[in-house]
Amino acid sequence: MGLFKAKGTVYKAVKDVDLGPYSTEHYLQANVKAPRMTGILIKIFIAILECPILGTLLLYILKGNNLIHDLVTNVDLQESPLFVPLHDFEDRKEKEVKCIDSSSSPPEKVQLAIDCLPKSSSEEQNSFSRWTIMDYYKAYSSGNTTPSMVAEKFIAAVNESVKPPLQMGFFIDYNTDDILRQANESTLRHKAGEPISVLDGVPVAIKDEIDCLPYPTTGGTKWLHKERPCEDDACCVKRLRLCGAIIVGKTNMHELGSGTSGINPHYGPARNPYDKNKIAGGSSSGSAAVVSAGLCPVALGVDGGGSVRMPAALCGVVGLKPTFARIPHAGVLPLNWTVGMVGILAGTVEDAMIVYAAISGEIPSEKPSGTPSKINLPLLSMTKSLSGIKLAKYGKWFDDCSDDVKLCCSQALLKLQNHYNWKTLDVTIPEIEVMRLAHYTTIGSECSASLGSLREKNIAEFGGDARVALSIYSSFSSLEYLNAQRIRNRQLQLHMKIFAEADVIVSPTTGVTAYSIQDDALKTGELDYINGAALVRYSIAGNFLGLPAVTVPVGYDKLGLPIGLQFIGRPYSEATLIHLAFAMQAICLYKKPGQYYDLLRR
Amino acid sequence: MGLFKAKGTVYKAVKDVDLGPYSTEHYLQANVKAPRMTGILIKIFIAILECPILGTLLLYILKGNNLIHDLVTNVDLQESPLFVPLHDFEDRKEKEVKCIDSSSSPPEKVQLAIDCLPKSSSEEQNSFSRWTIMDYYKAYSSGNTTPSMVAEKFIAAVNESVKPPLQMGFFIDYNTDDILRQANESTLRHKAGEPISVLDGVPVAIKDEIDCLPYPTTGGTKWLHKERPCEDDACCVKRLRLCGAIIVGKTNMHELGSGTSGINPHYGPARNPYDKNKIAGGSSSGSAAVVSAGLCPVALGVDGGGSVRMPAALCGVVGLKPTFARIPHAGVLPLNWTVGMVGILAGTVEDAMIVYAAISGEIPSEKPSGTPSKINLPLLSMTKSLSGIKLAKYGKWFDDCSDDVKLCCSQALLKLQNHYNWKTLDVTIPEIEVMRLAHYTTIGSECSASLGSLREKNIAEFGGDARVALSIYSSFSSLEYLNAQRIRNRQLQLHMKIFAEADVIVSPTTGVTAYSIQDDALKTGELDYINGAALVRYSIAGNFLGLPAVTVPVGYDKLGLPIGLQFIGRPYSEATLIHLAFAMQAICLYKKPGQYYDLLRR
Repeated sequence: MGLFKAKGTVYKAVKDVDLGPYSTEHYLQANVKAPRMTGILIKIFIAILECPILGTLLLYILKGNNLIHDLVTNVDLQESPLFVPLHDFEDRKEKEVKCIDSSSSPPEKVQLAIDCLPKSSSEEQNSFSRWTIMDYYKAYSSGNTTPSMVAEKFIAAVNESVKPPLQMGFFIDYNTDDILRQANESTLRHKAGEPISVLDGVPVAIKDEIDCLPYPTTGGTKWLHKERPCEDDACCVKRLRLCGAIIVGKTNMHELGSGTSGINPHYGPARNPYDKNKIAGGSSSGSAAVVSAGLCPVALGVDGGGSVRMPAALCGVVGLKPTFARIPHAGVLPLNWTVGMVGILAGTVEDAMIVYAAISGEIPSEKPSGTPSKINLPLLSMTKSLSGIKLAKYGKWFDDCSDDVKLCCSQALLKLQNHYNWKTLDVTIPEIEVMRLAHYTTIGSECSASLGSLREKNIAEFGGDARVALSIYSSFSSLEYLNAQRIRNRQLQLHMKIFAEADVIVSPTTGVTAYSIQDDALKTGELDYINGAALVRYSIAGNFLGLPAVTVPVGYDKLGLPIGLQFIGRPYSEATLIHLAFAMQAICLYKKPGQYYDLLRR
Repeated sequence: MGLFKAKGTVYKAVKDVDLGPYSTEHYLQANVKAPRMTGILIKIFIAILECPILGTLLLYILKGNNLIHDLVTNVDLQESPLFVPLHDFEDRKEKEVKCIDSSSSPPEKVQLAIDCLPKSSSEEQNSFSRWTIMDYYKAYSSGNTTPSMVAEKFIAAVNESVKPPLQMGFFIDYNTDDILRQANESTLRHKAGEPISVLDGVPVAIKDEIDCLPYPTTGGTKWLHKERPCEDDACCVKRLRLCGAIIVGKTNMHELGSGTSGINPHYGPARNPYDKNKIAGGSSSGSAAVVSAGLCPVALGVDGGGSVRMPAALCGVVGLKPTFARIPHAGVLPLNWTVGMVGILAGTVEDAMIVYAAISGEIPSEKPSGTPSKINLPLLSMTKSLSGIKLAKYGKWFDDCSDDVKLCCSQALLKLQNHYNWKTLDVTIPEIEVMRLAHYTTIGSECSASLGSLREKNIAEFGGDARVALSIYSSFSSLEYLNAQRIRNRQLQLHMKIFAEADVIVSPTTGVTAYSIQDDALKTGELDYINGAALVRYSIAGNFLGLPAVTVPVGYDKLGLPIGLQFIGRPYSEATLIHLAFAMQAICLYKKPGQYYDLLRR
């Protein structure tokens, strides 16, 4: 057929796919064919990509070389498309949980979450001393400090972090007047003995992809906020404010969420508090970094392809991405419509749970049909007695990472199952690399449609790597998009079969630890699809299938850089995931604080 | 930007669009730029279209000339995509209805429908004598005839219709043994005084897009059944069998539903019983024609872009297409996933309602969330006392049809409102032509993805017009597909605003009446996008927005060819639509039987 390849993969019926440990299903490793590019190379690449005919041809070849045609375009599939990973609620009676009404007020929900905490705090477990939400609350209650004093320290620390030698690139914007005003109000409430909740006066940072007054929402660009003014707080931000939290600014992110390094050519790279010459990961880079640096106990991010969990793992913090639609998406930049979800970055599992309680639950007037009106919160006081948990592990996938990550995650998992007497179930999850490509096709197509004519209009203001990404994003056909949605349906069926046997799927969070920020990347951004693919390897099911997932730090590589372990659950099983993360946290003591782990109090 | 046009339409926010009669919204008439083609012209066109680079360029120009780029591709839109037109049930208390449980058995539902009929039958209204379901039932009950005798007459009539001079092209397949076997079983039930329902022994024909044993499902092609064997009855067919209906064969259709004329180069054109030199319309061509010819009181079709309603109107019968998902889609060829729905073609409104009762209601195990578990049936005995109905009419659109259609439909509407003292509300429905293009983008993209590699593999067996259609279908980008879904969301909002004021939207069913079958089209099929656009002009909301719609014959053009009037309702308002169609039927007596209106009994 000349230029066109006749035929790609023929996918067999889901019912005939063996998901057991001795399955003959082949594990296809990512074989990314794209060299690292920065500087002048990116510029030449862009020039060719944006040529009408030459660009089309180059993209055709690139997609072919990277198996899109073989695995997504020219394939035989039986499944119909699943367009949105929205799940009907199935009440499975999770163990050791408290069921709360999702229409309760945010402060009520926070209080219910506090009631789930174990009586003895986790203080003794931490060998270094980032403050938790409860630490703030106790200090405010006892009068040892006030929100205003914390705000001043915070502003001083951030001001320091901006300048040499740090230049950490944490924030895109922060407004000292706005911070002090909020802190003052909170201080008055505490003085009057009337804090709204334990979050009253606690500093929380927000990814610059989420609407939050008085800041523009840049999405990591220099132009998007001019086209789309921020007119209101996003729903999740409103709920945090209702609890009294102090919103301390907008964190740095990978431009348009189109990459995973967090190297932003406009606002500087977000640097890793464990080693400022390493990436923080992305795209919620600044949100992970500020928590890791001890500036806030919690920050919000958005996870469209691991964008909360990856930087959380690379910066040694907890990252929780709930089920699709569990946290309202209203007020988040519509960079895509079916894969992005608000997620939480926190220093501890307990803090992630408290904020999860505060912001989750659909907006009643917009509640998608079939979604639950209840939220399960894990009784963390009972985690130790949680019995019979089954963890599904796909060995070939689990081990497809750097030696340090493999060793650390394997040991952590072994320790976990032995300590709690839980079982690991060996399984096969077929077509994981197919799912990565189908997800890439989906997020790319949706981002391209979402930006529409704004891309062309503002193209000169794009960083190099985002400009290349958008060029690739615009190259997909409707057939490729629809086949990707059929693969989504297929993968959901495969995953639900795994969940019929196991409670969670366990994997490393990333295939590599934080890599170096090279000087040549600072101005143009960096194309590094090989490291990118290794970073997102374990993230896709969370976004493409809308499944909840959590990452928890479990150790460090030889250079002392953090490593995360991930649990992926069935829809609406956040409580079980938090239980597991808490169980893991309890037996993996933090031993290695980062280079800048406590900026606020040093 | 060289080859690429900078910018298309900027759509204003829905809240700012004036839907009143004096709105400044422009009515854009379809301006199809594509000459009629048959024979050698089609072959040359195909050769160019299928050239790798030249074809891409030609398709790009064709899409540009036909406003796809201006109205779908390069546009500014605020809406997120609505991928599937599935509606949450909202109990609006329809007037004069009986609410039944959708999980009742098909025979129970049929009996409940019979209870809704007016006591005096509609016999006196018909000036010609196609038999209705109740006519069959009474004749069987009284012993005047038997299902076996009817089956023999049916087979003789169909055998005659196949040969010269008729060559009506009604059926793709019918199996005399299978028909006689079913008839014999029904005859025995009637003799034993135990008919299952009023449908027992009634002949029903099925479009060859719906699985129905013992027949292969060809979809109007010569190859599809070889790739996809028919292994079971479709759900709707099963339900008809449960009521005792005799399935009499698979009706002819436009190849792959990819056109609206019903000129099938493989099985011959389906001819219009009103004039055998005219088209029957499509794509459910044979199903409309057999009902019009009096061979069956009812037939099933599938409506993906007016494919039930258009041939019904052109052949002078009733066509009912319920809300998306109201009739299960299981066992229908997956030529698309979001626009096609099973519909009913019947000689009278009463018969359409009886079969609607028999086959509607979701499959309990597959019930999409939010859909109702109740079905409203109209108390047709009370139609005359139905008060306060408001009919929305968009004058510029209503009048965008041939003079005969305009005059006939206007008079029918006037008669209707005067006779029942109902009101017509003048409204503006913006962007109807945009919706047609967005729907075309959607059904084309989905058909292309659905056929996948089968298209290339079997391309030599395609008729000319289907081959061109599939070539165009494969040209859409993912951005175009996603923008089409955003237009879908937008149009649903606009339509729901209309339905906040009015009960139904009223329009002609087609812009033209049945046109001539020309000899040059017989072998290659025919490309006639201008007549095609005129045919589908009023159909799109039913498919793209999943709204229920019904067409009822209201008169004839100068040549004596039928004209239909259409009512479009809000989701799940089938009962109201059937009331209105019944009201219209009652005051528009059939005066002109077709050339072959009673093949069974002549």
